[in-house]
Amino acid sequence: MRAIPLGGLGEFGMNMMAFEYGDHLVVVDCGVMFADAELPGVDIVIPDITYLRENKHRLRAILLTHGHEDHIGALPYVLEELDTPVYGTAFTLALARAKLDDSGVSEGVELRKMEPGVPFDLGPFHVEFIHLTHSIIQAGALALTTPVGTVIHTGDFKLDPTPTDQHVSDLHTLADYGRKGVLALFSDSTNVERPGMTPSERAVRERFEEIISGAKGRVFISCFATSMHRMQIVTDLAREYGRRLCFVGRSMFQNSEIAQEMGVLRIPPGLLIPPQDLRSLPRNKALIVLTGSQGEPMAALSRVAVDSHRWVSVEPGDDVVVSARIIPGNEKSIFRMIDHLCRRNARVHYHDGGQPPVHVSGHGSVEELKLMLNLVRPKYFIPIHGEYRQLYRHVEMAKELAAVSGKTFLLESGDVLEFDGQGARKNGRVPVGRVCIDVGTLDEVGDVILKERRHISEDGIVIPILAINERTGELEAPPEIVSRGFVPLDQAQDLVESARQVILKTIEKSNVEEVGDWGVIKEKIRTALRRHFDQETGKRPMILPVILEV
Amino acid sequence: MRAIPLGGLGEFGMNMMAFEYGDHLVVVDCGVMFADAELPGVDIVIPDITYLRENKHRLRAILLTHGHEDHIGALPYVLEELDTPVYGTAFTLALARAKLDDSGVSEGVELRKMEPGVPFDLGPFHVEFIHLTHSIIQAGALALTTPVGTVIHTGDFKLDPTPTDQHVSDLHTLADYGRKGVLALFSDSTNVERPGMTPSERAVRERFEEIISGAKGRVFISCFATSMHRMQIVTDLAREYGRRLCFVGRSMFQNSEIAQEMGVLRIPPGLLIPPQDLRSLPRNKALIVLTGSQGEPMAALSRVAVDSHRWVSVEPGDDVVVSARIIPGNEKSIFRMIDHLCRRNARVHYHDGGQPPVHVSGHGSVEELKLMLNLVRPKYFIPIHGEYRQLYRHVEMAKELAAVSGKTFLLESGDVLEFDGQGARKNGRVPVGRVCIDVGTLDEVGDVILKERRHISEDGIVIPILAINERTGELEAPPEIVSRGFVPLDQAQDLVESARQVILKTIEKSNVEEVGDWGVIKEKIRTALRRHFDQETGKRPMILPVILEV
Repeated sequence: MRAIPLGGLGEFGMNMMAFEYGDHLVVVDCGVMFADAELPGVDIVIPDITYLRENKHRLRAILLTHGHEDHIGALPYVLEELDTPVYGTAFTLALARAKLDDSGVSEGVELRKMEPGVPFDLGPFHVEFIHLTHSIIQAGALALTTPVGTVIHTGDFKLDPTPTDQHVSDLHTLADYGRKGVLALFSDSTNVERPGMTPSERAVRERFEEIISGAKGRVFISCFATSMHRMQIVTDLAREYGRRLCFVGRSMFQNSEIAQEMGVLRIPPGLLIPPQDLRSLPRNKALIVLTGSQGEPMAALSRVAVDSHRWVSVEPGDDVVVSARIIPGNEKSIFRMIDHLCRRNARVHYHDGGQPPVHVSGHGSVEELKLMLNLVRPKYFIPIHGEYRQLYRHVEMAKELAAVSGKTFLLESGDVLEFDGQGARKNGRVPVGRVCIDVGTLDEVGDVILKERRHISEDGIVIPILAINERTGELEAPPEIVSRGFVPLDQAQDLVESARQVILKTIEKSNVEEVGDWGVIKEKIRTALRRHFDQETGKRPMILPVILEV
Repeated sequence: MRAIPLGGLGEFGMNMMAFEYGDHLVVVDCGVMFADAELPGVDIVIPDITYLRENKHRLRAILLTHGHEDHIGALPYVLEELDTPVYGTAFTLALARAKLDDSGVSEGVELRKMEPGVPFDLGPFHVEFIHLTHSIIQAGALALTTPVGTVIHTGDFKLDPTPTDQHVSDLHTLADYGRKGVLALFSDSTNVERPGMTPSERAVRERFEEIISGAKGRVFISCFATSMHRMQIVTDLAREYGRRLCFVGRSMFQNSEIAQEMGVLRIPPGLLIPPQDLRSLPRNKALIVLTGSQGEPMAALSRVAVDSHRWVSVEPGDDVVVSARIIPGNEKSIFRMIDHLCRRNARVHYHDGGQPPVHVSGHGSVEELKLMLNLVRPKYFIPIHGEYRQLYRHVEMAKELAAVSGKTFLLESGDVLEFDGQGARKNGRVPVGRVCIDVGTLDEVGDVILKERRHISEDGIVIPILAINERTGELEAPPEIVSRGFVPLDQAQDLVESARQVILKTIEKSNVEEVGDWGVIKEKIRTALRRHFDQETGKRPMILPVILEV
C-alpha cells in the first residue's frame, strides 16, 4: 500500500491524499486553498493532479471527510477531467452537489452516500466512516483496511464533549480499531500549536445568549454559511427571545434551505422571515444571520457596513457579531468593515479574546491530538493538514507519547510513503504543485503570467516602440515610449527624451546583422533602457520593446 | 488652542499631531506606516504634510515621544522640506540622527535634547517630558501647558511595574498634573481590545532563561533592533550562562553601538564577539542576537533560515527565538522562515501563546488605560494611536469611568479640535492623507501610478499598436498586439487575430474626423477591445492603445 499526499502537507489548505493498493487508488478529499495578494488576479488554488491524471485507470473513488472548501472545493475542476464516484455523508454531498451545479459539471457525476456504521468495499479497500465533531456537521475520519493493515485518516476534528446536536465523536469505534491494531494514523495538525483543549461549540451559545438577551435593537450574526451548529444555536435563541429569524446572503440562504430540507437545521414554523420583511419588523424583534464574516467586499455584512445593502441596514445601538476567526490575509478587510460598523454606532462583537468567545475553533488542540493518538495507538504516525512547522511540532508531540509503536514520518505533499510486510518507508516523490485559478473564467493562471503581473506591479511597465521600414531597415519615426505604473511620463519629458537617445544610440552602435535580427535588437534596447532607468529613477520597470514593420 | 491629528487616528501608524496656540505650532511625532501588498512597489507611507507646509512660518518644533519608526520614521521626508528643531530624549535623538544620516538630510538639522524633570518653553507652550515605560527606552508623555490649560499626550506606553532597567513610569508627575487639573488627555489606544494588564518585560526574561539554560547548541534570539530591554536581558543571560554574545544584522549592530556609547546598554568587556569569530566558537557557547523577526527576506534571520548568511548558520538542535509579535501582513513570510528553520531541525520558539511569553507588548491593556485616565482625570479625553474601532472602544471605556469631567471626542486624522475659555469643540478639517514612498528612490508614488499597478496586476496589460501614415492617415501595417500578465498570446493566435479584426472594424466604422482625432480613435479601440476580451476570456486587462505616426 502507498499513501501519497497530493496537497495540504506543508501548506495550508487544498487537502488531498491518495491511497493505493495494487491496481486500486482512492483519493481522500479534494480541496482548494484561497489565494492572497501574493497571487494577483488569482481567486483559488487547487492541487496539481498530474499524478491522478496519469493513473486515472486505477482511480476508484474520491472520499470526502466533510464539506468545507479546503476539502471539497476542487471537485468541479477535478471531476471535469476525471470520471470517478464521490463518497460523502448526506450533508457533505449536498454541499458538493450545489457546488457542482454552480460550476455546471454535475452531469454524470455519481455521488454516493457514506454513513457511520455502514462500511463498504472499494476493491481491496474496506472503508468505514467514523463520526467526529468539527465546525461542520457530518464530518469524520476514514478507516481504510487493506490486506496490509488499517490506516485511519482523521479528516479535520475536535473532540467536543458537548456538541450542540449532542452527537459526540465516535470514540468507541476509534478504540475498537486501536485495540485491533492500526497500521498508520494520519491526523489533523491545524491546532497543534494550541495547548489544552479547544472550547466546546457550546461556549459560543453562552456568548450569543448574553448578547441577544441584552440587545435593544437588531442583532446581526455573521458566520460561515456551512456552520449548521451556529445556525441552529441562533435559531433556538431567536425562538427563546421572541425574535424573528432572517438569513441574508446567497450561500447562507442556499445552505439553510439545503439543511432544512435534510432535517439537519430545525426551524419552527413562522420563525423565518425574508429580508424584504425586515423593514416592517420592530428592530428589537430581528435576528439576522448573514454572510461576510471575512470582510469579503461583496458579501452581506460588508454591504450592510457601508449601508449599501438592498434590504438590510444597521442603526445606532444594534449588535453585530462577527463569529469567525480572522483568516490571515483578511485582517485589513475585516477590520475596515468593523470600523465602518463602529462609525454607525453599532456594538460590534468580534473574536478579540473576550470571554465567552464569539467563535471557537473546529480543530482539536494538543490534548485532543494526544487523545486521538492514545486511542488509535498506531504503528506509524503521519501528521497531516498543516504547514511544515505544525507537522514538525505534531511529530515532536507524538514522540513524547507511548502511543506510536513504530515510527513517525514527516511527509510533505508529493512524498510517497510505502507500506508492506517489512514495514514502512518513504520511497520517492510524485509531481505535485499549485494550480492557480481565476474563478471568473475557471482558467488556470500560469506561472509566467503571475510573474509578469508581480513584476509590473512592483515598478510598472515601459513600452518603447520602433517603427522600422521593412525594406530599408531605417527608423520611420522617432521611438515612441509609453508606460503605466512607472513614473508619470507626461511630467518627465527629460526622462523620455534621454530614453529615446539611449534607444537611438543602441541602434547606431549595433552592426547590420544585429539590426536585422529584431530579437537581438530588442534585447539590446531592453538592457540599455534597464540600466538607464535604474540610474535615473532607481526603478526597475518591466521593459517591453516593440518593433513595428511598416 | 487647537489640536490637529495629522496621522495615526483611525489608521495604524504614521503618528503625527499638531498643537497650535496663536501664532505658534508644535508637532508631536513624525512617523511612518509600513506598506503592504495592497500598495505594490511602495515601501513606506508618510502623512501628507500639506497643512504644515502651509503653516511653516508658525512651526516652532517637532517633539518626539520615543524612537520607534511609527513616531520618527517620516523625519527625513519632513525635514527635507521644513526647517524646524527636533526635540527628543538622548536615545530617541540618537536613532533620529542615524536615520537622518542614512538619508543624507541631517545637515543643518537641529536636534535638541529633552529630559524628564527639565521643562522648557516654546513660545506659549510650556513643555514637560514625563517618562513612561514602553518597549523602547527613554519613551514618555508630553505635557504642553498653554494659557488655556495643560494637555497631556501619552505617546505609546505601558505601566510596567518591573521594567528591566528598574526605571518605572513617572506616575507622580502624572498625578501632580491630575491634581492641578488637566484640560485634555490624548491617550494611546493600541491595546484597548486587551483585557487586564500587559505582562511585564520581565516575563520575557523568564522564558529566555528557560531556553538558554536548557540549550545544547547555539541560541539565536531575534527581536526589534530598538529593543534595548531585550538586548540587555540577553546580554545579562549570556554572562550568567557562560556564552559569548554576538550581534548580527546592520541595524542590530548599529543600534547596539549607539546604545553602548550612550551607556544605555551595558556589556561586560570580552563578552562580545564579531560574527566572523562564531565559527571557531563551540556551538554551546554562542548567543546570537539578530534582525529579521518579521521575516524580512534580506534580514539576518531569514538568511540564516535558508543557510545563505555569510557568517552564521543554524544546525540541528539549535534554539531559535522569534521574540516579536507578528505584524499583520507579515504572517506568510514569518511562517515561511519558521518552516525553513524547522526543516533544519532547529527548535523554534515563537509568539504562539506559550507561557512565559517570548514577547510581550509595549502597549498598556485596558486596566493600564483606565489607570492613566484616573491619574490624569482630564476635562476632555481624546483617544489616539488606533484604528477607528479602537478609538471607539477607548471612548466607550472612558465613559464607564468617572475620570473625564467634561467630554470625550472621537477624532480622526484631519479633524480640528478647538479649545478656549468656553470649552472644546470639533471645528472643521485640514487636508490629510497618505503619501506613498518608494524607499529605494525616496520618490513619492502617486495614486494614479498605484491604481495602474493594481489594475495591471489583476488581469495584465494589452497594448495594441497602430502605425498610421501621417500624410494619408492610412494604416501602414496590420495592428500589432503585445501583452503581459494577460493570457499567453503566442498560444492564442485566434484571440490576437480576432482582436486585430475588432481594431480594423472600429477604424472602418469611424468617420474621417474621428480617425483624424487620435484621442477619439484610441478611446474607441479601447472600448471595443475591452468588450471583446471580456467576452472571449472573461478578463479585463488594462488596454493601452498606441498610435505611431510614420
